[in-house]
Amino acid sequence: MQMNDFSEEERESLYKAIYSRRDVRSNFTSEPIDEQVLMRILKAGHHAPSVGFSQPRRSKYLSYKLEGILESPINLCVTYDPTKTGSFVIGRSSIPATGVFSVCCAVQNMWLAARTEGIGVGWVSILSNETLRETLHIPDHVVPVAYLCLGHVSKFETKPDLETSGWLPRLKLDEIIYHEKWLQGKELKPTVQ
Amino acid sequence: MQMNDFSEEERESLYKAIYSRRDVRSNFTSEPIDEQVLMRILKAGHHAPSVGFSQPRRSKYLSYKLEGILESPINLCVTYDPTKTGSFVIGRSSIPATGVFSVCCAVQNMWLAARTEGIGVGWVSILSNETLRETLHIPDHVVPVAYLCLGHVSKFETKPDLETSGWLPRLKLDEIIYHEKWLQGKELKPTVQ
Repeated sequence: MQMNDFSEEERESLYKAIYSRRDVRSNFTSEPIDEQVLMRILKAGHHAPSVGFSQPRRSKYLSYKLEGILESPINLCVTYDPTKTGSFVIGRSSIPATGVFSVCCAVQNMWLAARTEGIGVGWVSILSNETLRETLHIPDHVVPVAYLCLGHVSKFETKPDLETSGWLPRLKLDEIIYHEKWLQGKELKPTVQ
Repeated sequence: MQMNDFSEEERESLYKAIYSRRDVRSNFTSEPIDEQVLMRILKAGHHAPSVGFSQPRRSKYLSYKLEGILESPINLCVTYDPTKTGSFVIGRSSIPATGVFSVCCAVQNMWLAARTEGIGVGWVSILSNETLRETLHIPDHVVPVAYLCLGHVSKFETKPDLETSGWLPRLKLDEIIYHEKWLQGKELKPTVQ
């Protein structure tokens, strides 16, 4: 017996969020983000997976305005503090980067949450971490992982900007899936027992 | 005028997925995952954000069975290939790790998609990358980022296993949010213009 407590409609709602999520850099309006909406988005990030359940202690959300540089009303710097839960974290001893992975999952949660709230999110990766540290007074041992700009938008694009501009096409899904071994095709179907 | 093309119900569906997503390590049933369901989950990963729109070329999904070691019918190794789009990727020149971040966002998309499909997902981080490379024939330049086990489950836990077992409590959200500057409290409200 299959266990599924999601309806067809609920499932479609998630896929709608996933497919319509865009990296937003323009079309921001000046309308402020409602505090409760912002907290819902942050809470979504707070419920992301975290290696060794470390993430709630490990990521710090820091918000401030960056007037004139970006047109979005809220900028959010999501950071990772490797020193927060002591020396041992389950799962992190073998792969040290997994703490940062948890932060990325939190970002993706917030991104999708924001999309359903009508809030555009852009992940700005062309920024100097040193400038960020200085401006936001981030301690040396804390890693700024993501710098996000959030705001209401006049519209959401249907395609990624870099796809629209011809930068890269979206690859076909079956071209990036291997079965059983690297470069091995789908003649072997692992779902068939 | 606010632009929002998501209904209250659609928004609640996403939050339901986010809050009920669990790292699943047990309760897997032997029932195989339908091929179409698996493809929907992989496609959700394919539509994650990617720095410089690089991710579709950069992550390879590789699935195989690991019978006897894990009880889940599908294991999925999600990898990152830094050599796939040539030397320059927008945004990646300043922060080399961002390609891996994109893969993590893809994992989170798949995790949420799986949850709405009634499929449990566990991110197994206690695994040797070298063993993975050897077993799956992954080339040296490709980075295994996530190793996931997927399967139908008899039930989804309501709390993270490590919270239930008393490993760590979930911190309050306002304890991990700073405003304007590190360690600075919420007396400054960045949402008020």
